[in-house]
Amino acid sequence: MSKPVNIAILGATGAVGTELLKLLESRNFPLKNLKLLASSRSAGNKLIFKGEALEVEEVKTNSFNNIDLVLASAGSSVSKTWVKAITSAGAVMIDNSSAFRMDPNVPLVIPEINPSSLVGHNQIIANPNCTTILMAMAIYPLHKTQPIKRIVVSTYQSVSGAGMQAIEEMKKQFKDIFDDKKPEAKILPYPLAFNLFLHDSKMTDMGYCEEEMKMVNETRKIFNEPDLKVTATCVRVPILRAHSESINLEFDEPFPIDKAREIILQTSGVQLFEDWQKNRFPMPFDASSNDDVLVGRVRQDISHPCGLELWICGDQILKGAALNAIQIAELLINENY
Amino acid sequence: MSKPVNIAILGATGAVGTELLKLLESRNFPLKNLKLLASSRSAGNKLIFKGEALEVEEVKTNSFNNIDLVLASAGSSVSKTWVKAITSAGAVMIDNSSAFRMDPNVPLVIPEINPSSLVGHNQIIANPNCTTILMAMAIYPLHKTQPIKRIVVSTYQSVSGAGMQAIEEMKKQFKDIFDDKKPEAKILPYPLAFNLFLHDSKMTDMGYCEEEMKMVNETRKIFNEPDLKVTATCVRVPILRAHSESINLEFDEPFPIDKAREIILQTSGVQLFEDWQKNRFPMPFDASSNDDVLVGRVRQDISHPCGLELWICGDQILKGAALNAIQIAELLINENY
Repeated sequence: MSKPVNIAILGATGAVGTELLKLLESRNFPLKNLKLLASSRSAGNKLIFKGEALEVEEVKTNSFNNIDLVLASAGSSVSKTWVKAITSAGAVMIDNSSAFRMDPNVPLVIPEINPSSLVGHNQIIANPNCTTILMAMAIYPLHKTQPIKRIVVSTYQSVSGAGMQAIEEMKKQFKDIFDDKKPEAKILPYPLAFNLFLHDSKMTDMGYCEEEMKMVNETRKIFNEPDLKVTATCVRVPILRAHSESINLEFDEPFPIDKAREIILQTSGVQLFEDWQKNRFPMPFDASSNDDVLVGRVRQDISHPCGLELWICGDQILKGAALNAIQIAELLINENY
Repeated sequence: MSKPVNIAILGATGAVGTELLKLLESRNFPLKNLKLLASSRSAGNKLIFKGEALEVEEVKTNSFNNIDLVLASAGSSVSKTWVKAITSAGAVMIDNSSAFRMDPNVPLVIPEINPSSLVGHNQIIANPNCTTILMAMAIYPLHKTQPIKRIVVSTYQSVSGAGMQAIEEMKKQFKDIFDDKKPEAKILPYPLAFNLFLHDSKMTDMGYCEEEMKMVNETRKIFNEPDLKVTATCVRVPILRAHSESINLEFDEPFPIDKAREIILQTSGVQLFEDWQKNRFPMPFDASSNDDVLVGRVRQDISHPCGLELWICGDQILKGAALNAIQIAELLINENY
């Protein structure tokens, strides 16, 4: 792909879409033209880009003519609906939905981890699930040094992962509770204000919900370790932005803690964030609007000689979604894939 | 101890103290006289008990004369300060603080699990840590059937565990954020509204905070399994009441899921709370003001052939503190320990 490029954002008005717009601006992306696409409901809205108001257009079959790259983040069904129109028009689609992630012909990419999987892409590139990206960023550099045998992870996921309407609904629930009114849940499955619940994505036969199986299967695909043992418990918590994860790793041999810290310190895209004297470790407030995944409380697991524990926080709209997609786009352009 | 008894509550105005008062009333406890004790700061306050206003008295050396049983929940240092006065007066102390829990001469009791450890108590009985009680209630019946080899637990702990002032502070933080003001943290170490953080209890040399080491050491003591492998990550979340825990268990052999569910169904004090069709599992809202520990999403761990996972919610002020203390008191009286 030669630069500069014509880009379309599909789902421009969503939580991730608006962040994509900001990143294209702040990163000085080699952009020729930018087209904002959304459903008919959002068409006509205007979004500011580099000081100019761009109108959101309704997505149509001919929307992708002369487009080089589509950044899609309007959900699985929208991606499936438009994929043919996009690829037929000769554009490359970087898809933030789960629609094609497990397709063996579609690379699932975290630029810091498996950039070479982009080679020979078939115009569709999948952006991984947010919780998966954040965890993978923290543990892959360790895995490369000494293979991980098993992962036990529990997540603390903010409401922004459920989209903009969910954010507004949760805020309203808090206000209702303070006003002694019963909180309503229409977008979210249950009240989330002063409450939390296991991730409500569809339950699979294994007893794991789809969000949890994404962490299992996508981590395996990204690491190219089809037999990696992973168990995940995904939980939605009343946080506006940034996900946290409690990660327990098992190796075949003990992993020296100092070595783990050194590796994290030297890895770009992650930040060793811990002050043991002050008992200060990553919080969602630290990770919000931060490009890096914050990693802290790196410690020997006292229950297992070959166990290591991490606590991470990351902005799931940035590195967990929009930023990763933009980094893939930059890789496509700069490496001329 | 013969009934009815004279009881003193030490720390009567606190989050647990006020719940003790309610339980003494609702459970029709065999009570002769009730004395409410607190620091000079709270002395003079009145609390309602069975329709009557009882005045809170400042605790003094002679406060425990003619008292049979002291329910102490004013923190470790207060318990240490008054323990001699209490035992010298001939009273038995059920202590909700961590002051004496790991003392080999002090029984650490969950009535459903280790009632017999009360035999030969030396006038001091310790009530375990809240997160420990909730987890122990859910997993001990499984452990009795097939020994647990290792526990990996991550918690989601509500603010009420940090006391009444922390509850008010967190509410104020939410209101401040809605008013575009910067949230202040004086009681809590950091803002908790729309945020979360690793439990801020003192860090130990092992890289585990004291709250986490309580889960390790107290579980071992209650189960009488000094070598049980446990690792815990304790997290404070913006929830008003009830703690949740993501629990991963390893056994020496596979634990059949149906058997695990059957055992939980038959155990008093825990409730099997899961609807797989509706994707409905325990939430803090369900557990608040509920005597039982709710256990759900009992599933085979796909990362380990001998692994089992549970998701639990429990009211940490009730079974995690006040209710467990009252049940110990009832046991002392009814079994005439």
